[in-house]
Amino acid sequence: MRYHVAGELVDAADATVSVADRGFRYGDAGFETLRAYGGGVFRWDDHADRLAGTLDALGFDRYPDAADLRERVRETLAANELADAYVRVSVTRGAQGGKLTPGPADPTVVVVAKPLPRGGVAGEDVWDAPASARVIETRRVPSDALPASAKTHNYLNGVLARTELDGEDEALLRDTDGHLAEGATSNVFWVRDGTLHTPSLAGDVLPGVTRRVVLELAADAGIDVETGVYEPGALRHADEAFLTNTTWEVRPLVAVGDAALPVGPVTERLRDAFDRRVEATHY
Amino acid sequence: MRYHVAGELVDAADATVSVADRGFRYGDAGFETLRAYGGGVFRWDDHADRLAGTLDALGFDRYPDAADLRERVRETLAANELADAYVRVSVTRGAQGGKLTPGPADPTVVVVAKPLPRGGVAGEDVWDAPASARVIETRRVPSDALPASAKTHNYLNGVLARTELDGEDEALLRDTDGHLAEGATSNVFWVRDGTLHTPSLAGDVLPGVTRRVVLELAADAGIDVETGVYEPGALRHADEAFLTNTTWEVRPLVAVGDAALPVGPVTERLRDAFDRRVEATHY
Repeated sequence: MRYHVAGELVDAADATVSVADRGFRYGDAGFETLRAYGGGVFRWDDHADRLAGTLDALGFDRYPDAADLRERVRETLAANELADAYVRVSVTRGAQGGKLTPGPADPTVVVVAKPLPRGGVAGEDVWDAPASARVIETRRVPSDALPASAKTHNYLNGVLARTELDGEDEALLRDTDGHLAEGATSNVFWVRDGTLHTPSLAGDVLPGVTRRVVLELAADAGIDVETGVYEPGALRHADEAFLTNTTWEVRPLVAVGDAALPVGPVTERLRDAFDRRVEATHY
Repeated sequence: MRYHVAGELVDAADATVSVADRGFRYGDAGFETLRAYGGGVFRWDDHADRLAGTLDALGFDRYPDAADLRERVRETLAANELADAYVRVSVTRGAQGGKLTPGPADPTVVVVAKPLPRGGVAGEDVWDAPASARVIETRRVPSDALPASAKTHNYLNGVLARTELDGEDEALLRDTDGHLAEGATSNVFWVRDGTLHTPSLAGDVLPGVTRRVVLELAADAGIDVETGVYEPGALRHADEAFLTNTTWEVRPLVAVGDAALPVGPVTERLRDAFDRRVEATHY
């Protein structure tokens, strides 16, 4: 594989950043996980907007614009002859002296990629089976400490959440008030009496791109949707549930702790709608 | 300068880590800032213990022992002919596939160094003037999200705190309940009616090595000490105050927002005691 680092395509084995880079020293970087289908990046504009929002929230005084970043992604896919792929784009604040307070620096852009299966109606899932999850003790970092809308290289909160698991696929985090927030790398949805629920972005929840797409698809399909503030117990009493993120797309959630859930009809409907959306726009 | 990266001494310009290293991807790393005086690392055992505590808190399944790390620090100082120096030791969980959940990986150790002035009685301060600070809006990440005792490469909370400043030297963070916690890179002390105060480690406070040394020196000097939970307003009503960290040592704090404080006698006494301790043990 070849990766795109600081403007150059290099062999993966040579893809490095300086130990002086703030992305290494402090995790002072934003990132996006993208998925390419048939050569095109799914919902690029949403990802580019969120990344810009992250870098603004971190107070970056400069960073490459969306067109520049898009070109680096294109070059990375082309260099590896990838059409269906996972892509991770990171923008660090750059290398700077040993001061914590940010000063002038040139951001470092890193693009890594790897093959993924085809998506869409004829595609296959990247996961082997529906997901199991558990509500763990580690609480989500609150927005007054680090904005929940910022997707950054400070990902230890999610790492710690995952290390609490005992073989499950995903760790579900509560906010510091005990309300259900999200998975370590996913948003969570459930259905009760025909209404689709997910925690509101007014809480400490990452505004997932797949989350947004699913809400659009639900609206198109006439499915009732409610977003709000929920106790984790809501999941145990759900009729069905699923997780979303860019690589998993819509992944049924069939176990939360010791509670079992079926793969339900609303989940299947939204999975189909998602696949059709990808098929129509990318193949 | 030559840095120590993954077991090799390399020129600073070649000191890099893989973009696949979890230290870069997630800030999944612990670190210590050390100070060498006269060729010896000050309070190495305290730093080594805290680093091990950090890596244990992050669930590292392996990492080099203190003697191994100490040898890398020694080699770095020797390669650069440094006796009085700043040293930063980082241990990342290592490079691993694209999974957030930690798997088997070999930790990456990075040691960087730079010259600092001599310490001790005949030394000079690394800072130009006493410190100014401000209590900012960003709240310290709570321990239920990330243990406060862990010193990690997830340092965006401190970065965001510093970006709120308007020229002051340090940002003072409150915990999520509004109590005074610490500076972005320092612990905070103040004196009221002859008693030295600092927030208790029972709160969300990093157990600073210099903090510990100062508490020892205060006990030796017969200074009354109280640790507890305090409102930020306590600083405004203090008779004197100071900040501590490894590089600053004991730095007088003479402005908190618009409140001015003198450089007081207890601060001077502890500064002298600190210098004498360094002089006696390192020169």
